[in-house]
Amino acid sequence: MNLLENTLEQIEALDEGVMTAAQQKLDLLSKPLGSLGKLEDLCRQLAGIYGTIQYDLSKKVVIAFAGDHGVYEEGVAKDPQWITKAQIPNFASGTCAVGTLARFMGADVVAVDVGVNCDEKLEGVLDYKIRKGTSNMAKGAAMTGAEAIRCLEIGIEVAQNTLKKGYKVLAIGEMGIANTTPSSAIISVLGECDPKEVTGRGAGLSPEGVLHKVSVIRKAIELNQPDKEDPIDVLSKVGGFEIGAMAGAILGAASMHVPVVLDGFISYAAALLAKDLHPHAADYMICSHYSAEPGTIKATKLLGMEPMLNLDMRLGEGSGGILVFQLLEAANYLFNHMATREASGC
Amino acid sequence: MNLLENTLEQIEALDEGVMTAAQQKLDLLSKPLGSLGKLEDLCRQLAGIYGTIQYDLSKKVVIAFAGDHGVYEEGVAKDPQWITKAQIPNFASGTCAVGTLARFMGADVVAVDVGVNCDEKLEGVLDYKIRKGTSNMAKGAAMTGAEAIRCLEIGIEVAQNTLKKGYKVLAIGEMGIANTTPSSAIISVLGECDPKEVTGRGAGLSPEGVLHKVSVIRKAIELNQPDKEDPIDVLSKVGGFEIGAMAGAILGAASMHVPVVLDGFISYAAALLAKDLHPHAADYMICSHYSAEPGTIKATKLLGMEPMLNLDMRLGEGSGGILVFQLLEAANYLFNHMATREASGC
Repeated sequence: MNLLENTLEQIEALDEGVMTAAQQKLDLLSKPLGSLGKLEDLCRQLAGIYGTIQYDLSKKVVIAFAGDHGVYEEGVAKDPQWITKAQIPNFASGTCAVGTLARFMGADVVAVDVGVNCDEKLEGVLDYKIRKGTSNMAKGAAMTGAEAIRCLEIGIEVAQNTLKKGYKVLAIGEMGIANTTPSSAIISVLGECDPKEVTGRGAGLSPEGVLHKVSVIRKAIELNQPDKEDPIDVLSKVGGFEIGAMAGAILGAASMHVPVVLDGFISYAAALLAKDLHPHAADYMICSHYSAEPGTIKATKLLGMEPMLNLDMRLGEGSGGILVFQLLEAANYLFNHMATREASGC
Repeated sequence: MNLLENTLEQIEALDEGVMTAAQQKLDLLSKPLGSLGKLEDLCRQLAGIYGTIQYDLSKKVVIAFAGDHGVYEEGVAKDPQWITKAQIPNFASGTCAVGTLARFMGADVVAVDVGVNCDEKLEGVLDYKIRKGTSNMAKGAAMTGAEAIRCLEIGIEVAQNTLKKGYKVLAIGEMGIANTTPSSAIISVLGECDPKEVTGRGAGLSPEGVLHKVSVIRKAIELNQPDKEDPIDVLSKVGGFEIGAMAGAILGAASMHVPVVLDGFISYAAALLAKDLHPHAADYMICSHYSAEPGTIKATKLLGMEPMLNLDMRLGEGSGGILVFQLLEAANYLFNHMATREASGC
């Protein structure tokens, strides 16, 4: 049995008994029932994931996957492609947005090359390069079926190896110029809607640029005819290496009973693939922010989730997801330190 | 000149030059222009408030005002009124939600009695009691014009005295059983809409309870005819002591060039009054969360703001606002520690 199948077999539903116990504890606290809203949902979910109401969130990590995209040559992105190669080492050194936030929060960052368009080894970046970017999906499949499985398994392997070091919370991030294009394509296919509904400015396209991007995505879907019922087919036809690896990392975390904080739009595309590969994978996901991409709303609805942050960020990297670390810690602190109604006399 | 007039005279527009300098610094950082969204807005706003791009956010405080409401006798709240008196001492001792979060974040809490329905002094709570709760607005004005000015001035005085101790960020909170009722009334008057549009479950009313609450608010507005153009008249006719004091605290913070983080629905009613008293008061406000109250959307639109958190909280106290402290610190850390495009090579 291969790593993907093996990992999928290990993913379990959350522990309902522990979740009930967590809610019972929340209901004793000195506040109107349910009034902490999504913070209560988080307490219940974390308890169900860890299988206990006493857990330690101090060791946290962001895993960011980087890849380039053949569809870049269609002119769907504003920035030059070499930015992927230039920016990913800054994840490890901690000077990009997510790296800076990780230092601020005492979290670690693991950066992974799954398909960056360069020959040299990138400093501080794990080398899992499949090849130097996907093929242009406007002219054929972005990758082969074997490559789709390979990028999923890279995500699983890196997540499992990383989490074995004792991390209790994972956030996923990415870097890949043009990667909102395959993300919109995936969400359009899985959500059965026209690409126009789920395609936006990316890192800063003009309105005309967005229209062109929509037409490229439509063409790629028409040409490749991805099978909505088969997530590996969708990934191979209109996906990206880093998107597949993110989906794999979600599965890897779920298999090890670790919650995984999603980032923005690109991670939601990956999350939809992971959910289609195993329905209980979604139980381990924590939604983060409404990014400025309009497709975020559609994608999170398909996931059955609602973002907790509304910051109009459109930077990727994992920079939106890592901000949720603070909310997890706040929720857990309340869970453990608020007085009960009985003790407070209220 | 009285304290209110004097304070209003001191409120200035933000420093546009410093805000431009902050944006210029942000635009040099290694990220697509504007891609940090509302975190960039915060950096710019804080710089404009403090008049410098180098500031220290470490000393933070929550001021929470407590008062009771005559309209409680109309059956508009689910909880017993004595909860106000019982819960406000837990703000100071740090065992309620906002007190617990304040401990977690190293912030201080100041609790103030402006009108709690009790005779005894409340432990750890500043005693600024005007009287033991407002009058029932369904039968007449909630308070006199002099009392409206008095609660505004209490807010100003407590904020100014507190901030003189060196706090650089203020969040406002409240405690007062039934206080979503006057809040909905204020927002309905200032927003020129039927109370039904901006009235919700409070701490847990049934659907029938909400309909009754709406009818009580309609009756109070029809009876008292508050003058939309006169915020002091609105506060006196359909307001509350703690709501007026929160509005005053906003004005006090603005007069001292300190940002003030709003909490949820009740604080938005107070913020609308403060904005009508001085248009530049709004420049010092930081919006926090979409509470579960449906009127939040209307109120924040009237304020011209958009909440950053979407947590379905409906607990009050300041518990939503205090979570924004983490976002302010994250934004400021990014502002000071991210690499520039030049340094990162991107």
